[in-house]
Amino acid sequence: MAKLLPAALEKLIDELGRLPGVGARTAERYAYFLLKADQHINASLSTAIHDVHALVKTCPVTFALIDADEDVSHLYSDSDRDKQLIAVVEEPLDIVALERTGQFKGTYHVLGGAISPIDGIGPDQLHIPELLKRLVDDEVKEIIIATNASVEGESTALFLQRMVVDAGISVEMSRLARGIPVGVDLEYADQITLTHALEGRRAL
Amino acid sequence: MAKLLPAALEKLIDELGRLPGVGARTAERYAYFLLKADQHINASLSTAIHDVHALVKTCPVTFALIDADEDVSHLYSDSDRDKQLIAVVEEPLDIVALERTGQFKGTYHVLGGAISPIDGIGPDQLHIPELLKRLVDDEVKEIIIATNASVEGESTALFLQRMVVDAGISVEMSRLARGIPVGVDLEYADQITLTHALEGRRAL
Repeated sequence: MAKLLPAALEKLIDELGRLPGVGARTAERYAYFLLKADQHINASLSTAIHDVHALVKTCPVTFALIDADEDVSHLYSDSDRDKQLIAVVEEPLDIVALERTGQFKGTYHVLGGAISPIDGIGPDQLHIPELLKRLVDDEVKEIIIATNASVEGESTALFLQRMVVDAGISVEMSRLARGIPVGVDLEYADQITLTHALEGRRAL
Repeated sequence: MAKLLPAALEKLIDELGRLPGVGARTAERYAYFLLKADQHINASLSTAIHDVHALVKTCPVTFALIDADEDVSHLYSDSDRDKQLIAVVEEPLDIVALERTGQFKGTYHVLGGAISPIDGIGPDQLHIPELLKRLVDDEVKEIIIATNASVEGESTALFLQRMVVDAGISVEMSRLARGIPVGVDLEYADQITLTHALEGRRAL
């Protein structure tokens, strides 16, 4: 079939199609939007995409994302954060979700994923040794394992717990509560969530 | 609330959020993907977005999208396309959909939208005068009005039909058939579509 769209537009559609969850139709829609948009919109999106690697780096202590000109995450260095309490998360964006609650005053540790043999991610790819070091260095009293509620997240939590025990480090460990999310009707809750909700029931 | 993400990442999320239908969560997902992607992926997406305006232009005859170095759409200039048959569409991407059928051997005319008072689009913003000129210049025998099956598309089709008649141009005019799409169960077809399907029924 002959070429139906200008080469530059085809190219843009292909490139946009690499974004996660973006199929051919969605990529076409984005590309057509950008074609009709003012050049200043394209220019700033283009620059933001090009520069993000150079302007963002990983905190050497917590592995959170920080500005390239920062030394360490302010969520670690701020004096009002409790360094003896660590929430362990899989990905940097999980920190944003927890911070939005406004309820957590400790510090964070990003593992950089979860153990997943299918994706070829073993414990060695995760920032576990650095966490064990922090537990000792900062005399940490409690860690909240806030990995995802997936099979991988659960395995990672169990593995981490064993690593801490095996290292002979004494620290309180907990996992985020499982239960029925706010606003969800009981009849729509899945069986496993409901089982967790029963097990974790709280006295009134 | 203190800044939770590096400035460059926030900026990227904001910019991606301008894409149609992309909310905050989706923009975060795209931005995080780009942050983790190889720089060559970011570089080519960035270039494609930046360059699309300069490398794509509109065909002066059909208003289809063409390469900046082309004079006229090859779907018009190719000798095997029937210039006396024109499919009138709203947007350039509609051409791709029709070409994919492989059934249409005429040429196209892109109106550049549909009449929509709410969006401030009147007949003057559409490429109707250029169409009337083509009807005369190319001695067009038939036009298929392939605007969308929306209220705006229907109004535009009616308006166009009147313009052609008022201009005293004699040409066969038709509209794409309405009916039940392939693979859709009768019980799920909406009332209006079903009415169209009854009206347009074909003898066996």
